[in-house]
Amino acid sequence: MTDKNNPNENEDLQVLLQRVTYLLRKYKLVEGFVNLQEKPDLELAESSVQKRNLEELKNLLDKLHPADIAHILETLPLDDRLIIWNLVKVEHDGEVLLEASDAVRETLITDMGNEELVAAAEQLDADEIADLAPDLPLDVINDLFQSLSIEERENLRAAMSYPEDAVGALMDFDVITIREDVKLEVVLRYLRRLNELPDHTDQLFVVDRDEHLQGVLLVSQLLVNDPDIKVAQVMTKEMVTLQPDDNAEQATHAFERYDLVSASVVDNTGRLQGRVTVNTVIDFIHEKAENDALNLAGLSEEEDLFAPVLKSVRNRWAWLAINLVTAFIASRVIGLFEDSIEKLVALAALMPIIAGIGGNSGNQTITMIVRALALRQINPDNARKLIIKEISVSAVNGLIWGTVIGLFTYTIYQSASLGLIMTLAMMLNLLLAALLGVLIPLTLRKLGRDPAIGSSVLITAVTDSGGFFIFLGLATIFLL
Amino acid sequence: MTDKNNPNENEDLQVLLQRVTYLLRKYKLVEGFVNLQEKPDLELAESSVQKRNLEELKNLLDKLHPADIAHILETLPLDDRLIIWNLVKVEHDGEVLLEASDAVRETLITDMGNEELVAAAEQLDADEIADLAPDLPLDVINDLFQSLSIEERENLRAAMSYPEDAVGALMDFDVITIREDVKLEVVLRYLRRLNELPDHTDQLFVVDRDEHLQGVLLVSQLLVNDPDIKVAQVMTKEMVTLQPDDNAEQATHAFERYDLVSASVVDNTGRLQGRVTVNTVIDFIHEKAENDALNLAGLSEEEDLFAPVLKSVRNRWAWLAINLVTAFIASRVIGLFEDSIEKLVALAALMPIIAGIGGNSGNQTITMIVRALALRQINPDNARKLIIKEISVSAVNGLIWGTVIGLFTYTIYQSASLGLIMTLAMMLNLLLAALLGVLIPLTLRKLGRDPAIGSSVLITAVTDSGGFFIFLGLATIFLL
Repeated sequence: MTDKNNPNENEDLQVLLQRVTYLLRKYKLVEGFVNLQEKPDLELAESSVQKRNLEELKNLLDKLHPADIAHILETLPLDDRLIIWNLVKVEHDGEVLLEASDAVRETLITDMGNEELVAAAEQLDADEIADLAPDLPLDVINDLFQSLSIEERENLRAAMSYPEDAVGALMDFDVITIREDVKLEVVLRYLRRLNELPDHTDQLFVVDRDEHLQGVLLVSQLLVNDPDIKVAQVMTKEMVTLQPDDNAEQATHAFERYDLVSASVVDNTGRLQGRVTVNTVIDFIHEKAENDALNLAGLSEEEDLFAPVLKSVRNRWAWLAINLVTAFIASRVIGLFEDSIEKLVALAALMPIIAGIGGNSGNQTITMIVRALALRQINPDNARKLIIKEISVSAVNGLIWGTVIGLFTYTIYQSASLGLIMTLAMMLNLLLAALLGVLIPLTLRKLGRDPAIGSSVLITAVTDSGGFFIFLGLATIFLL
Repeated sequence: MTDKNNPNENEDLQVLLQRVTYLLRKYKLVEGFVNLQEKPDLELAESSVQKRNLEELKNLLDKLHPADIAHILETLPLDDRLIIWNLVKVEHDGEVLLEASDAVRETLITDMGNEELVAAAEQLDADEIADLAPDLPLDVINDLFQSLSIEERENLRAAMSYPEDAVGALMDFDVITIREDVKLEVVLRYLRRLNELPDHTDQLFVVDRDEHLQGVLLVSQLLVNDPDIKVAQVMTKEMVTLQPDDNAEQATHAFERYDLVSASVVDNTGRLQGRVTVNTVIDFIHEKAENDALNLAGLSEEEDLFAPVLKSVRNRWAWLAINLVTAFIASRVIGLFEDSIEKLVALAALMPIIAGIGGNSGNQTITMIVRALALRQINPDNARKLIIKEISVSAVNGLIWGTVIGLFTYTIYQSASLGLIMTLAMMLNLLLAALLGVLIPLTLRKLGRDPAIGSSVLITAVTDSGGFFIFLGLATIFLL
């Protein structure tokens, strides 16, 4: 955390980063580092100047929040990253691993021995270990299980059993439970016996003997009410409760809609299992938004800025391959009309315009629909209205832009009929884009797939091949 | 909020929505509604069946959280939306307007009289009124000012003075302040005199006589510590503080990084101005992610699902026009080589492949860089390394995909030299895509513009025109 005298925490981080880089450079200069692959043996750093640099670096890192250390590690190239990573206090290792992005976490874990990993993970809660688990070697997970208490082991097993997109994967076990028949006074005394409250404790959970959730006591109610009142009198019975199998994304909507700080998780008999807190929700929202953006751009997953080249190639491979297939298809569509192009070569120069604008317009529609689907705004009642609206928008756009393009064509090629064909082709391709811009995401959704992934590639494929076919087909029929 | 017996709040909402739609349909049937433009005069609805429907609808709506009402309104076509809107309790109007998306809010406000608007806004806090203000008629804002207390007027003026992307625009004024020299016991008694605490009160702000922030007392510290201890002994002095002029997006990173529920906002003398809470931050993150996605797809702003056609056309206009210009340029580049295409018509069928894959690859690079810029992971130290990495990735991809395409071309056209030209053109266009994929966002950033907006359009323009030029140019030199 930043000191209150340095209110802008981000400028702060930039300055820190510069200082770290500066010290690192001096350190490497003295040491005569050249082999970037080799891990520096910090024990051997003997010269006094260097010792001072290292000391200062260590002090700097010790004072930083784990999230800030993770940020610095993410910004550094691999060799520098590992030097810094070895300077981080062992007590911080687990937290930093948690905060680092998946790709960077992998590079850090690869650099650590099994014992180091167990030591780092042991400092974390069961739900946090579960987040790391997919990246840990199996040996480490086994060792970890041995070192945990029975309760923690149970929690870890529970946390690891849920798929990534279920509420169970977001859940933690830090719940404070109370009974409804005690006075607030008793609750206050109970809390005072604790050393600290779990982070994000904005409510205490009221349960019966069998751990069935009866209601929640908001901390703010605890604070404003007379200590002589009983819990039952001020507890809230109308609250959001989640189930471990609920869809995580839908749960985050509940946080957004009802401005929650935490929400209880119960099993299907109403027994309290844990809670979800807003910080986990923010991370989830962020990751989801990022993954959507990455997928849209054709990256399979998040990529370390300094990932080895071959790793990056692999990450980008799948979507380039798909793109190649759709490009081949479009190319073959054009191939069908080679005779026409040979007779009127202007067609070759004009056809990318039809395909390009169609793709842009189709992507506009797709984005609207995918967003509305995510917000659950589309149902059978209004789907037809939506198609009609999108087609109307496209008809107007087709008229406007088709006319512009027709005039452009006429000006350049001095052919009114070629201009008219352009106008007509543009209108038809925009209508195709609108129709499929609505139908593609709706169909993907019906097939149980995420409409955010792949919709854009599909619509572009359709408007490319479709655009070429419509334009060259019309030209062949009417001009040649 | 949902009852605890209905844990999945979303299924709940879906069912509710169906019920609302059903009642609406029955209502309209009885009333013989045909003219969708005309606002229904609910006072005139006299028939008894209809009265019952209306009653049930009203009851349903009265029980709903304003966020849920807003959601239902967003899902309904304009005519149905306005019928429902007129049934919403006046006390809920302000909250619903706040929760609704900008586009839908506009349609609701248009439907309201000035007095209704003033009444709705009066129920909101100053910071909330400031959020609505840009959409309100000037008369309404003036009337509102008159109706507020001096302090609220001051707050409203302050809140409205900050640009949308500054911390000041996210700030609210619901702070509880205490002095450091009192005992926790006194603080507890003080809180008990309040009817309720502001939402998201996870900390109390410790200030001196001049309202200078000295530290914060976490509510959890207040609860676990002995009431006889003084505030000064348990307050935290190391906390995140923001300034009203700070960049809002950077502030949201602080919430994410340090798992905050609230953060203080101070002016440059350290005087407490207000606070930012996590619910506002979530809304901001969400809106930002959405706007980025919309801009990327070529929509200027969020669009009401059922916006009138001409309004939608306007929203999509700007990007289609830009796209048209870049398509014209690409078309003219092809026009330069019409002679070559006439001699070898296969060029026309092959050239979109080069342009398409280049665009895809360039967008992959851009997405990486824009994301890293947003996370502040790029600095002059590592920018050069990044360019080298991206160019290496492209070189490998160019080799792989260029070979695939070369073989494809050879198979179809039985010309080894044409295949080689394809391979070479593909490699060169991918290198161009990598270089500009790094340089375009870095340059936009240097010019002080948001690299997320427009980068994608620019890189596609470059890889289209560039791809056509490279491929047709090479073919003209070596084949013809």
